[in-house]
Amino acid sequence: MFVILVYDVGVKRVGKVLKTARRYLTWVQNSVLEGDISETNFKKLKAELLMKIVPGEDSLIFYTFRTKNYSKREEYGLKKGGEDIFL
Amino acid sequence: MFVILVYDVGVKRVGKVLKTARRYLTWVQNSVLEGDISETNFKKLKAELLMKIVPGEDSLIFYTFRTKNYSKREEYGLKKGGEDIFL
Repeated sequence: MFVILVYDVGVKRVGKVLKTARRYLTWVQNSVLEGDISETNFKKLKAELLMKIVPGEDSLIFYTFRTKNYSKREEYGLKKGGEDIFL
Repeated sequence: MFVILVYDVGVKRVGKVLKTARRYLTWVQNSVLEGDISETNFKKLKAELLMKIVPGEDSLIFYTFRTKNYSKREEYGLKKGGEDIFL
């Protein structure tokens, strides 16, 4: 499955959240990671991140896609992250 | 089509980029907007934003999806933006 993670977390936690997320996904832009991972790893990632955030202050959004057949990714301007072509 | 826009732009331009993007999409989190828009409006949004960014400094990523049938959105923690259920 393909996953896009966007997060908005307190400055004290952003390092830990990024470090954890980077074990599963590729950083592509400020507070945005993406990548193809297994269902099992997605569950692990979610569980680990949920232990690191403060629900009343931080926000995580996961967009998951079982196929990329109907999707497209367009990047403009400065290329920040590592993922070149995911679609 | 469903669009997720993530952006990372210079502080001098972020207001203009957000204001433009909000005419087409819903703000859901810091530097993240999403929503269902027509192909025509997507082209307009792209054109307008490309005129506002400095390609050597700013970064825009558009994820577009012709269907949401194979996708899911999960939001955890503080609900920041306006979009409740898009899937």
